[in-house]
Amino acid sequence: MDTWMRFMSSEGTVVFGRVEGAYLHEYAGLDNRVPTGAVLSMRALTPLAPCAPGKVVALWNNFHALALKLEKPVPTHPLFLLKPAGSVIGAGATIERPAAYAGKIAYEGELGIVIGRRCRNVSVEEAAAAIFGYTIVNDVTAAELLNENPHFPQWCRAKGFDTFCCLGPSIVSGFDWRSARVVTTLDGVERQNYPLDDMVFTPAEQVSLISQDLTLEPGDVIACGTSLGVGSIKDGATVSVSIEGIGVLSNRLGTTEHLATDVAAAASASVA
Amino acid sequence: MDTWMRFMSSEGTVVFGRVEGAYLHEYAGLDNRVPTGAVLSMRALTPLAPCAPGKVVALWNNFHALALKLEKPVPTHPLFLLKPAGSVIGAGATIERPAAYAGKIAYEGELGIVIGRRCRNVSVEEAAAAIFGYTIVNDVTAAELLNENPHFPQWCRAKGFDTFCCLGPSIVSGFDWRSARVVTTLDGVERQNYPLDDMVFTPAEQVSLISQDLTLEPGDVIACGTSLGVGSIKDGATVSVSIEGIGVLSNRLGTTEHLATDVAAAASASVA
Repeated sequence: MDTWMRFMSSEGTVVFGRVEGAYLHEYAGLDNRVPTGAVLSMRALTPLAPCAPGKVVALWNNFHALALKLEKPVPTHPLFLLKPAGSVIGAGATIERPAAYAGKIAYEGELGIVIGRRCRNVSVEEAAAAIFGYTIVNDVTAAELLNENPHFPQWCRAKGFDTFCCLGPSIVSGFDWRSARVVTTLDGVERQNYPLDDMVFTPAEQVSLISQDLTLEPGDVIACGTSLGVGSIKDGATVSVSIEGIGVLSNRLGTTEHLATDVAAAASASVA
Repeated sequence: MDTWMRFMSSEGTVVFGRVEGAYLHEYAGLDNRVPTGAVLSMRALTPLAPCAPGKVVALWNNFHALALKLEKPVPTHPLFLLKPAGSVIGAGATIERPAAYAGKIAYEGELGIVIGRRCRNVSVEEAAAAIFGYTIVNDVTAAELLNENPHFPQWCRAKGFDTFCCLGPSIVSGFDWRSARVVTTLDGVERQNYPLDDMVFTPAEQVSLISQDLTLEPGDVIACGTSLGVGSIKDGATVSVSIEGIGVLSNRLGTTEHLATDVAAAASASVA
């Protein structure tokens, strides 16, 4: 098992590498795993999401326990939506409430698969070899937008807002997901705690089947779907998703005092 | 009005520029419109899609005539899905049938908006200024996958396959979309012919409203949705979408002789 992280240096350049203690051994890139020779103290670096996906493929209904609770049959092919690159933030960054949305915002703690090499129409065996490693995802959703229009479920919109895909803190290669659990806490109170071996499609099956649909590129992420315990985040609350062996992904939902002020200002302006 | 195209040079580099007669006046980029001074004969160049979007935002139900036919109310906010970057091909390239899909493949001729500068929470006026120009889109769909699972409409999957977003042949800046029509032919027979002024959300309204949801980047494309006359493409047939003033976007759906051979081989293997 190796742990990989990505940072912004004080000079404003992005560095990616393997973690050893408090040091980062820099590598040319996730898809070009050649050490550059540089060894950097992580104390001088600002953490970023551990990769920069061109797209995030997010699964729905991929856990038996959740399918049972929702009374939905388990799917025969991964059911997914796309979250755009611009939705990605790293550990510690703030989830921003959309300016025009005052409704419920939900967390979903998930395992994330990070693709290591281009995959198109790959077998399950080839898919296993193409997985670079695993990370943690908080797949954030503006829950009330999802079914706002009765004729068109707005998956991409509800889950695609800037900052709505928390990723990190690291990628672990050679990680044994089968014996791991996803634990999500909201302001320190446990809300999710589910075993990854309850997945409908294993990571290698997901990569193989999704690669029949669209080409997966190095750095792309598949969010494996969530299980029981999804709930909403109050403004100012912190969600922490942890998977032992990968780390803890903590993100706070920003408060909306500025919005309240704007609304009050608009109201007083309209009265005046 | 200026016409912009993108090509692969014989040396394998990508060139972007403004068209004058048979020559391309090269520019640094769509978001950096500085002439490089190079003037290239287009005869020596291989056409590409006129931009390389990081994402394509594809609208559903954005024309009054289609909403009426579908008996759906017109939406109050653009309803969209995302098509990934890997789905984009240029004029003349072949639409590839997915290896595991034998069902109907539909064409949808559409106007495409090309973003010229980063947009987040922009007003309609700012949005109008952020539009670089207009192109043509054939928003291809594996129609039978859309509702294959009754619990989750698979918009991203059905429309996200590699080669399922035909774009081109050019981008025209300063184009007057209000007086234009989209005409789609299938093997030369007209199938769609609808006016763009029947749109529910105008291009500037789309850019403004979608920028409240997700940041639009230079080169991103919004496919404005289609109207009446959508139909399916037989293997080997050619779809041509034209908008006077922009050009003609022609793409053929590849034949699947290799798939038939594979199926026959598999069948004979299983018999033997």
